[in-house]
Amino acid sequence: MAFRVAVLISGEGTNLQALLDTVHGDSVEIVGVAASRAEARGLDRARAAGVEAAVFAIADHEDRAARDRALGDWLEALGVDLVVLAGFMELLGPELIARFERRLLNVHPSLLPAFSGIGAIEQALAYGVKVMGVTVHFVDDGVDTGPVVLQESFSLFPYPRGIAEVEERVHEVEHRLLPRAVKLIAEGRVQTDPGNPRLLRIEDGERD
Amino acid sequence: MAFRVAVLISGEGTNLQALLDTVHGDSVEIVGVAASRAEARGLDRARAAGVEAAVFAIADHEDRAARDRALGDWLEALGVDLVVLAGFMELLGPELIARFERRLLNVHPSLLPAFSGIGAIEQALAYGVKVMGVTVHFVDDGVDTGPVVLQESFSLFPYPRGIAEVEERVHEVEHRLLPRAVKLIAEGRVQTDPGNPRLLRIEDGERD
Repeated sequence: MAFRVAVLISGEGTNLQALLDTVHGDSVEIVGVAASRAEARGLDRARAAGVEAAVFAIADHEDRAARDRALGDWLEALGVDLVVLAGFMELLGPELIARFERRLLNVHPSLLPAFSGIGAIEQALAYGVKVMGVTVHFVDDGVDTGPVVLQESFSLFPYPRGIAEVEERVHEVEHRLLPRAVKLIAEGRVQTDPGNPRLLRIEDGERD
Repeated sequence: MAFRVAVLISGEGTNLQALLDTVHGDSVEIVGVAASRAEARGLDRARAAGVEAAVFAIADHEDRAARDRALGDWLEALGVDLVVLAGFMELLGPELIARFERRLLNVHPSLLPAFSGIGAIEQALAYGVKVMGVTVHFVDDGVDTGPVVLQESFSLFPYPRGIAEVEERVHEVEHRLLPRAVKLIAEGRVQTDPGNPRLLRIEDGERD
C-alpha cells in the first residue's frame, strides 16, 4: 500500500510540483493538497495531477484553532501518513502539531539552527555567510527547531552573489531535498535514535 | 615584500603546520609563533621551520591584560600584518582585539553563527545536523561573531557518524580552509563591503 502524503501550500507550489514529479505515484501517493488561501496557484498543480485540493483559510473559520481542527479532520479522513509543509506561510497551532507529531515535515531555506524564522535567506546574506543550505525537519512546537531529517549546503563563491541567484539556488536544492526526505521516510529509513529523540538515524544507500 | 603572519597556538599546532606547509615562504611569511603554554607541541614545529617561537602564559604575567599587552608588543615588534588564532585556547582581552582590529583571524569548527563557543562539534552532533563545516572569520569583541572570510561544509551521510570521524574531517577542512583564507587576505582579495562592515567581499579565481 502506498505511503499517503498530504501537502500544505500557500502560493506557487513549486515544492509540491517537485514532489508530484518525483515521488508521487510509486510507493508514495500524494492524496491531498491544502492551501491557506484560495489564490494559491499550487491548487491548480494539484488538480492537474488529479489530486484532491482544498482551501483552509483562517478567514473562513472562527479562528486559527478552528481552522486547524478542520484541517486536521480533513487530513485524518484522507488517512495521511505524512503532512508536508511546502511553502505553507502560516503557523500551525500546538494542537495540530501535537495531533500529527512526527508526521509533519517542513522545508526551511537555511542550515538550521542558523537563521530560523522568516526571511532566512535575507538573514544569512546580512550575516555574510559563505555557505548556505536547506533543512528538511519534523515540526515541533518551536520555530524551526524540530529534529533534522536532511540538510544540503552550497557555497557562495565567488562572493557576494545577488539575492535572486541565491534564491534560485535554494529552490533548486529544496526541490531535490524535500522529495528525497519524503522517499526516505516512506521507505522507513528515517528512525529516531533510541537514546535521543532529537536524533534521526538515516539509512541511505548513497554516501554523499 | 612578504605579508607577515604570526600564529597563536595552545597545543599540537596542526593548523600551524598546514600554514607552514602551504602558504609559508612565498608571498606569505610566518614570522612568529606564540603559545599560551610552554608545553604546546606546536612550538617545536615553529622551531623546526626556523620561525621565532615564544610563550605568553598568563601565569608568567600579573594578569591576562598584562599578558595581552606583552603579546601585543611582541606582535607589533615583529611587524605582523595578520595574527592567526590556530587552536589558541584562551580568550584574548578587548584591548588586544581592538589593537589588532581586522588583523586577527580565527578558525572555528562550525558553520557560524551556528554552534559558537566551545564544544562546537559536540553541540552540532547533539543537535542532529546533517551538514557540518568550518568557518574562518575575523575576531571581534563577541564570541565567534566576527565577519566571515570563508566557510566550507561537508555532509554527514550516511548518518550518524562517530565523533572521531567527524573531528578528523573537520581538521582536514580546517587545514585547507585556513591557509586559503590567509593567502586571499595576503593577496588583498578580501575587502570590506563599503555598505556594510560585516560583509567581506572575496575575489577568487575559482568558483566553488
